[in-house]
Amino acid sequence: MEAPSSRAVQDHYPEDFSHCYGCGRFNPDGLHLKTYQDGDETVAHYTPTPSQMALPGYVYGGLIASLIDCHAMGTAAAASERAAGREIGEHPAPRFVTGSLRVDYLKPTPLGPELEIRARAREVGERKVVVEATVSVEGVVTARGEAVAVRMPESMLHARSRSGETP
Amino acid sequence: MEAPSSRAVQDHYPEDFSHCYGCGRFNPDGLHLKTYQDGDETVAHYTPTPSQMALPGYVYGGLIASLIDCHAMGTAAAASERAAGREIGEHPAPRFVTGSLRVDYLKPTPLGPELEIRARAREVGERKVVVEATVSVEGVVTARGEAVAVRMPESMLHARSRSGETP
Repeated sequence: MEAPSSRAVQDHYPEDFSHCYGCGRFNPDGLHLKTYQDGDETVAHYTPTPSQMALPGYVYGGLIASLIDCHAMGTAAAASERAAGREIGEHPAPRFVTGSLRVDYLKPTPLGPELEIRARAREVGERKVVVEATVSVEGVVTARGEAVAVRMPESMLHARSRSGETP
Repeated sequence: MEAPSSRAVQDHYPEDFSHCYGCGRFNPDGLHLKTYQDGDETVAHYTPTPSQMALPGYVYGGLIASLIDCHAMGTAAAASERAAGREIGEHPAPRFVTGSLRVDYLKPTPLGPELEIRARAREVGERKVVVEATVSVEGVVTARGEAVAVRMPESMLHARSRSGETP
């Protein structure tokens, strides 16, 4: 199912939890964001489509929030694995969900070039990881984000079992 | 172009600024969120598609952030018009952009039923409006948001002129 060389965090989420619109490898309509470890940071890239605009010429802020959100959850998974002495790929990646998300839009993000999303975990707890992220275009940071990632609660697993087949 | 009875804020944005992925009436791929005044609050409704999921059975957090974002900008426009003694529909609605956005995900949002997004302006300044919002499903609030809306800067108008035709 997975190429052995793939180190993207999202390629190592358990299959049942890989349908996320932002980063699930099994979501046919989604963004398919991929988070990679890069030294002490993580990095992801995404090129918006022409329709993902806010105003003509600029990237939609909701997309920027979405990319930060998914990349932050991937970063939390990677940081949590490192704290346990493992790297992503050695084990199914733990799945975090978003407790809170804050995005500061520092300047308009031009639509067209690839976006780079970088993040690092600022606090790594057993249940909660705080992640800081930036979005940049051609080397210029246009947005900063912070997310609180919470390890997926058991209740979401149970609801999943009740819902049966996924769309 | 517009039905005279339409009071959705987004139906009164100037045509050149109605291409937003979240709420632009001219974006063919977008969410088409519509913000209506409802007493001192504003309200919008959106039914997620099956693929707009985070984990099976739950709505994608990036979608929730996007809905809060666009609804907050519409709320800022409506509040700004009220502060000037006008209602939406009497005049082209002013266009706000997002300075910052914060979302607290209070509990998982079940995927399936219609979402209701409600908001009110907490501070209405000449250039800046602070908006508080909630997202609820069947009467249960699952997320809270706060956005700082900033009146669209002149520089974005200029960039639009440079960019020529919109996609």
